Amino acid sequence: MSKELTNRSDDYSQWYNDLVIKGGLADYSAVRGCMVIKPYGYAIWEKMQFVLDSMFKETGHQNAYFPLFIPKSFLAREAAHIEGFAKECAVVTHYRLMNDPNGNGVIVDPDAKLEEELIVRPTSETIIWNAYKGWIKSYRDLPLLINQWANVVRWEMRTRLFLRTTEFLWQEGHTAHATKDEAIAEARTMLDVYAAFAENWMALPVIKGVKTANERFAGAEDTYCIEALVQDGKAIQAGTSHFLGQNFAKAFDVTFTNKENQLDYVWATSWGVSTRLIGTLIMAHSDDHGLVLPPKMAPIQVVIVPIVKTAEQLTLIDEKVNVLRKELISKGITVKYDNDDKQKPGWKFAEYELKGIPIRLAIGPRDLENGTVELARRDTLTKSTVPLQGLEDVIIGLLDEMQLNIYNKALAFRDGMITEVNSFDEFKKVLDEKGGFISAHWDGTPETENIIKNETKATIRCIPLDNSLEAGNCVYTGNPSIQRVLFARAY
Amino acid sequence: MSKELTNRSDDYSQWYNDLVIKGGLADYSAVRGCMVIKPYGYAIWEKMQFVLDSMFKETGHQNAYFPLFIPKSFLAREAAHIEGFAKECAVVTHYRLMNDPNGNGVIVDPDAKLEEELIVRPTSETIIWNAYKGWIKSYRDLPLLINQWANVVRWEMRTRLFLRTTEFLWQEGHTAHATKDEAIAEARTMLDVYAAFAENWMALPVIKGVKTANERFAGAEDTYCIEALVQDGKAIQAGTSHFLGQNFAKAFDVTFTNKENQLDYVWATSWGVSTRLIGTLIMAHSDDHGLVLPPKMAPIQVVIVPIVKTAEQLTLIDEKVNVLRKELISKGITVKYDNDDKQKPGWKFAEYELKGIPIRLAIGPRDLENGTVELARRDTLTKSTVPLQGLEDVIIGLLDEMQLNIYNKALAFRDGMITEVNSFDEFKKVLDEKGGFISAHWDGTPETENIIKNETKATIRCIPLDNSLEAGNCVYTGNPSIQRVLFARAY
Repeated sequence: MSKELTNRSDDYSQWYNDLVIKGGLADYSAVRGCMVIKPYGYAIWEKMQFVLDSMFKETGHQNAYFPLFIPKSFLAREAAHIEGFAKECAVVTHYRLMNDPNGNGVIVDPDAKLEEELIVRPTSETIIWNAYKGWIKSYRDLPLLINQWANVVRWEMRTRLFLRTTEFLWQEGHTAHATKDEAIAEARTMLDVYAAFAENWMALPVIKGVKTANERFAGAEDTYCIEALVQDGKAIQAGTSHFLGQNFAKAFDVTFTNKENQLDYVWATSWGVSTRLIGTLIMAHSDDHGLVLPPKMAPIQVVIVPIVKTAEQLTLIDEKVNVLRKELISKGITVKYDNDDKQKPGWKFAEYELKGIPIRLAIGPRDLENGTVELARRDTLTKSTVPLQGLEDVIIGLLDEMQLNIYNKALAFRDGMITEVNSFDEFKKVLDEKGGFISAHWDGTPETENIIKNETKATIRCIPLDNSLEAGNCVYTGNPSIQRVLFARAY
Repeated sequence: MSKELTNRSDDYSQWYNDLVIKGGLADYSAVRGCMVIKPYGYAIWEKMQFVLDSMFKETGHQNAYFPLFIPKSFLAREAAHIEGFAKECAVVTHYRLMNDPNGNGVIVDPDAKLEEELIVRPTSETIIWNAYKGWIKSYRDLPLLINQWANVVRWEMRTRLFLRTTEFLWQEGHTAHATKDEAIAEARTMLDVYAAFAENWMALPVIKGVKTANERFAGAEDTYCIEALVQDGKAIQAGTSHFLGQNFAKAFDVTFTNKENQLDYVWATSWGVSTRLIGTLIMAHSDDHGLVLPPKMAPIQVVIVPIVKTAEQLTLIDEKVNVLRKELISKGITVKYDNDDKQKPGWKFAEYELKGIPIRLAIGPRDLENGTVELARRDTLTKSTVPLQGLEDVIIGLLDEMQLNIYNKALAFRDGMITEVNSFDEFKKVLDEKGGFISAHWDGTPETENIIKNETKATIRCIPLDNSLEAGNCVYTGNPSIQRVLFARAY
């Protein structure tokens, strides 16, 4: 069958690609490194956007929109920013095409060369802080709490559907504050928002931490992150929140008059999550049969399939289902009734299993006689016969139970994949044989971190925020260490 | 006062720019022709998106997302498409920056030149139909009803905030059908959706029509449009829906097996509205005091301002207002209570008038004693004292009344600005002295249309869909004509 997936144990990477393509979540495009997000994948993104956007607004943020293009000179203004990552990007040099005088389609008009090249935003700190300069004069204009939903482009050499693409969709918050403490508090608040979203909605346990200097966002003073673990034992950075100090304010000369009537530079944060969350969601929960979606992230939560031989049987079932459907919808549950006769029930069952619809109901004439339905839950792949009477409440309860079950399963897996090691041999052995997070002492130097990265491909994912201090010796150099940090190989 | 606007009668164009900038709707950016959409302007866009997106979904469409970049060769595949408009666009030629060896910031890395240039999408027919080729095999895959919310770039020489910018936000629907009739019906359905949105939500009367060949979308067989009129007597094309025939299917070789098992090319439509709608909304209803927003498009529908001298007075009013606020919010009304003491009531009144908040309530200690509030409505600028008791119902009724009042005012204005003329002298006189739509006979040739355009700057905005046939003579050539068409100068 063409919808068959590679097994995770045979080739995890191929399993993931199969699932994304065959599950109708995304497709490759004609443009290198860019993907098409297909309707089913986009519906998951819409759910994510809706919830996150509400959470941003509840915490006082407003949306706005800034230009796609950034003048090349802007990127160079914040020195660490351009050094760090802003070089691999799409550069617009011309603004017109013309007919090829030799008749071969169109060519770039050489007369339409821009005086200064424009960069397709890889992130928007520079263009936004240039705008903030005109908006902020006094402490009365602060805090400025703005978010943008946008597409960004980073010219990636190796791409992977959803997890790393040249163009991706994201949100980027950019806030301005009168004091350092307030900016740090904002960065931490947004990290909490991300963690709450991952855990409560995506059923994804995450570790909140702070990045080492090596792994910090270019231009930040501190980068906070949420780190998740997926089924092959690799880590995924699922969201970041940066305390930017006064770096961008200084680069773009954004000052304000404080309450004491003195001029000071503004303090900044930025924070973002992207369509990478969809890849993380898929990798975290799905199985060899297809997607497993936590009910709160499922575009369709319940699918109903009639099993009939005659048109009269279908009419009777249609009636029954229409009542049930309306009741479920009125309780906020998304339902699809698939009575399309182009496909057989067996095909539909496989399709909805692949697509991770949490609950599948099947109703045949005998069910109608008995007042029952067959209920299949996607997370455990179990089936049971349940009475039609009171079914709405059963479904509501079950969706909650499944949400929790999927979270608990991911949590147990993740917790079992955090291993403390005390020697570099043990470090390499666990990394190769088990994977996951390795909790190890580190001497705090970027040099040691780099050596370990070069030797093992593992990076320090974060220093957990709730880390307990513990004296020890660096797993690599033996030098004194004050705490363990989390290493892992990562996507 | 810095928030003062130019009067419409003095300089309509300056009035509009003042309003957009001082009203906090948008700002100029550092990138030529690109604007920043500020939070208040973006909040209007969010309302538009929410309503339109629901309407698209109710008519069976799903959202998806396609790449920002289009390979240059794709644009040339549909000959009329590239000839018509796709040449003024942003061209990506390189994918990396590098440090300037002379130490002057960064330069474009000459080694990072793309083999084929990429165009920042001016519209997505080509990249989408290239994807559809892989998705459509059989009539079972049709219709394919997809919409995308996206940014697009057209290198405009003369720009105007919201109405014509190099980058703008829009939605573009791209549908694929098994038959010509079905595709035409789809294009007409979406035109009706746009018209209903403009009239019922934006309080904007529009004329539904079809474009002449000259004004048709490049690559379309027919372009349907909604045309609005704003206060200076100019027309604005507020939305278009195109029947594309099989042009893109042929250009990208998209065929399907029909029910009779024969191979045929797929039929197509595309349709879009953009952030230009925000400019149209502003121009249609606003006055010399600022924005006038129909309540259904207002991000804040009711603002409440306390008028107090002491903290105790404020405490009493806070209590009263909090009850009222909750009641209004529970009825789906958006309310802002502005008890910020940084600004005086007079400043707030002017600010909310400028921002077009439909209803402003002011409450002072005497109101509290009397159980009243002062209610000011933005559309008529009238004030009245109304009892607190039952105020929610008064407000709900008034918001409806204002929505209708704003629509009726715009309708009366528009209807009064459609003038039938029967000679070219009359045509020019009405155009210069009155403006608006000119209903005139035309001989049906592109040549005549072009001459009239060159002589008067008026174009044929549309042939109304409900046009009655009427024999006559072309206002310019005197040749026979079967119907009047609508000319106007347009944004």
